[in-house]
Amino acid sequence: MTLQIACQDCDTVHRQDTRLWRCGCGGPLDVDFRGRIDAAMLRRRSRGMWRYREALPIGADARVVSFNEGFTPIVRMRIDGKPLTVKQENLFPTGSFKDRGASVLISRARELGVEKVVEDSSGNAGAAVAAYSAKAGIECEIYVPEATSPGKLAQIRLYGAKLIRVPGSREATAHAAMEAAERHFYASHVWNPFFFQGTKTYAFEIWEQLGFNAPDTLIVPTGHGTMLIGAFLGFRDLLENGLIDRLPRMIAVQAAGCAPLYRMWRDQLAELPPAPSGDTIAEGIAIAEPARASQILDIIRETGGRIIAVTDAEIERALLDICKQGLYAEPTSATAVAAFRKIPADRDECVVAPLTGHGLKSTEKMLKLTG
Amino acid sequence: MTLQIACQDCDTVHRQDTRLWRCGCGGPLDVDFRGRIDAAMLRRRSRGMWRYREALPIGADARVVSFNEGFTPIVRMRIDGKPLTVKQENLFPTGSFKDRGASVLISRARELGVEKVVEDSSGNAGAAVAAYSAKAGIECEIYVPEATSPGKLAQIRLYGAKLIRVPGSREATAHAAMEAAERHFYASHVWNPFFFQGTKTYAFEIWEQLGFNAPDTLIVPTGHGTMLIGAFLGFRDLLENGLIDRLPRMIAVQAAGCAPLYRMWRDQLAELPPAPSGDTIAEGIAIAEPARASQILDIIRETGGRIIAVTDAEIERALLDICKQGLYAEPTSATAVAAFRKIPADRDECVVAPLTGHGLKSTEKMLKLTG
Repeated sequence: MTLQIACQDCDTVHRQDTRLWRCGCGGPLDVDFRGRIDAAMLRRRSRGMWRYREALPIGADARVVSFNEGFTPIVRMRIDGKPLTVKQENLFPTGSFKDRGASVLISRARELGVEKVVEDSSGNAGAAVAAYSAKAGIECEIYVPEATSPGKLAQIRLYGAKLIRVPGSREATAHAAMEAAERHFYASHVWNPFFFQGTKTYAFEIWEQLGFNAPDTLIVPTGHGTMLIGAFLGFRDLLENGLIDRLPRMIAVQAAGCAPLYRMWRDQLAELPPAPSGDTIAEGIAIAEPARASQILDIIRETGGRIIAVTDAEIERALLDICKQGLYAEPTSATAVAAFRKIPADRDECVVAPLTGHGLKSTEKMLKLTG
Repeated sequence: MTLQIACQDCDTVHRQDTRLWRCGCGGPLDVDFRGRIDAAMLRRRSRGMWRYREALPIGADARVVSFNEGFTPIVRMRIDGKPLTVKQENLFPTGSFKDRGASVLISRARELGVEKVVEDSSGNAGAAVAAYSAKAGIECEIYVPEATSPGKLAQIRLYGAKLIRVPGSREATAHAAMEAAERHFYASHVWNPFFFQGTKTYAFEIWEQLGFNAPDTLIVPTGHGTMLIGAFLGFRDLLENGLIDRLPRMIAVQAAGCAPLYRMWRDQLAELPPAPSGDTIAEGIAIAEPARASQILDIIRETGGRIIAVTDAEIERALLDICKQGLYAEPTSATAVAAFRKIPADRDECVVAPLTGHGLKSTEKMLKLTG
């Protein structure tokens, strides 16, 4: 298996077995690994994201940490009469698509012989890293903002992770984890590039579920961009394997209450604006300082996409529509449906959006919605 | 499609399009429908429980109500060093295996032209029937015990169902729903035999996931027996199609706090004992008056199985073990692991147990466990 780990900013190439989570220059790292995908081989594989085995940068099978997750079902919805294909990423073991990334990242940690990981999260990524660490027998410490909902705290704790609640903003939590990362392996869904090697399976599955075709458009709720970047890498793998002939247009969605990427895009800024840690019901993407902002904007440009901001009122309306059609997702998921309403899609266009996390994770917010 | 609907007690055959939920004599109804399964055909089918299309008693495809659910992943665990195969039924759209039954039952309701359904449930079945009714555009009324947890209430309400909270016991709720069922279609997961035609897909998937083999033993948490009866019907279909050569041994598990079936089995009673609506953490199977008790006992005898009761302390210990291995299930699921500890399984025996519902559904109980 050939892979290269390099800095996005200064191009420094790091050792293949590096435990660094960012370059010495402060830049984010990338894994340069071009996966091989053979459509004929897939017929004989069991269901799940590890069916794309040759496209995932883990050496020995014995290192793979998995609950046989993935291959989440798609379902067709109609929103204002327009067809939308929804991928039920809320049906992962821990209740969100973050399991894709955690499965590959914790496999990587096991491959490196890591004994303890630290991670910070507003909830979903923390639960995923805690669950896969438990499966791997790796000690795990999760830093969460003090305001994280009780349901998410219970879940992380029951997986056996040590939970550290940090007062203040989401950013304060990240900084506390980074300090701990000086002593332990930082299993960051934001910084560690192996996480995106997992979320790229989102693209492979969509391709296969659409009859081995790319959709025209992907709508992706975006905070740190864990799904957007992964989806891009996945479709690029498919393109390089000659299995599709163009990348889908990628539309990132942000909540208007915390929309630094949207502002960069709209105002053509070179740097992140000093965004307030705004309040929004879409807590999963309320990220004031996305670490990979320029990478995200590059992807939007390269695929001919755009960034859309949606208000909490629009998100709530979309969430009610989703539920009324029998699906149950966290509010963050509804940003994609709210954004879908804003794009002039023609009726033949194939648009795919994810339900990123389970509605059962957001009981407090769901209760408010029911009045 | 040939099917016959007959009373279990008096053998009366009812019209094929009957909307009755029980016989005039008070007995429960059965659907006599022997599904056809062709292993070769399955290779070309997409994932999900409807891949066993010819084994499900719904006529036109256009009536099928589905989120492309099912084919839930199995995963291997070790409990006290012994191997246990766990099927992640908690990863259904509404968070429990009840979606199997609801998908077929609400398809049946649509086939009959039903406009409104009523159902009663302590939570999981109510959520499932509400979600599939929403998908089908059928009006839905769910009766729940007053003490049902807020998370489950929110979920049912968000699907757009009308929620009626009934004071008193679980049985009082059932009686309120039965009264309403005099005016509307009773989409009961207990009484309506089409529900079991859905839960039987649990057996088909296990067979396929074990390489087209039946396991030696199935352990099934049992209250009303919705999974146990379904699993039996499914394996019987496989046997009659010549795809397996014997039925797996079926072990039903009850919570010691509410164990009428266990007492019938242990004490060889012909009738249900006057069981108290006992208190147990395994709320999903706390059923004092199971409607199909004799059917359940027949299945246990026919397959050479048994019934085991487990205490809340044993359930809690098992639940912590499940979570520590990275899985997140409701306490009811843990009864199966607790029972597994009590059977003298040899190391070569293939034992399968389900995670019946998601841990995210039981946050209050999970919080208590974390102390």
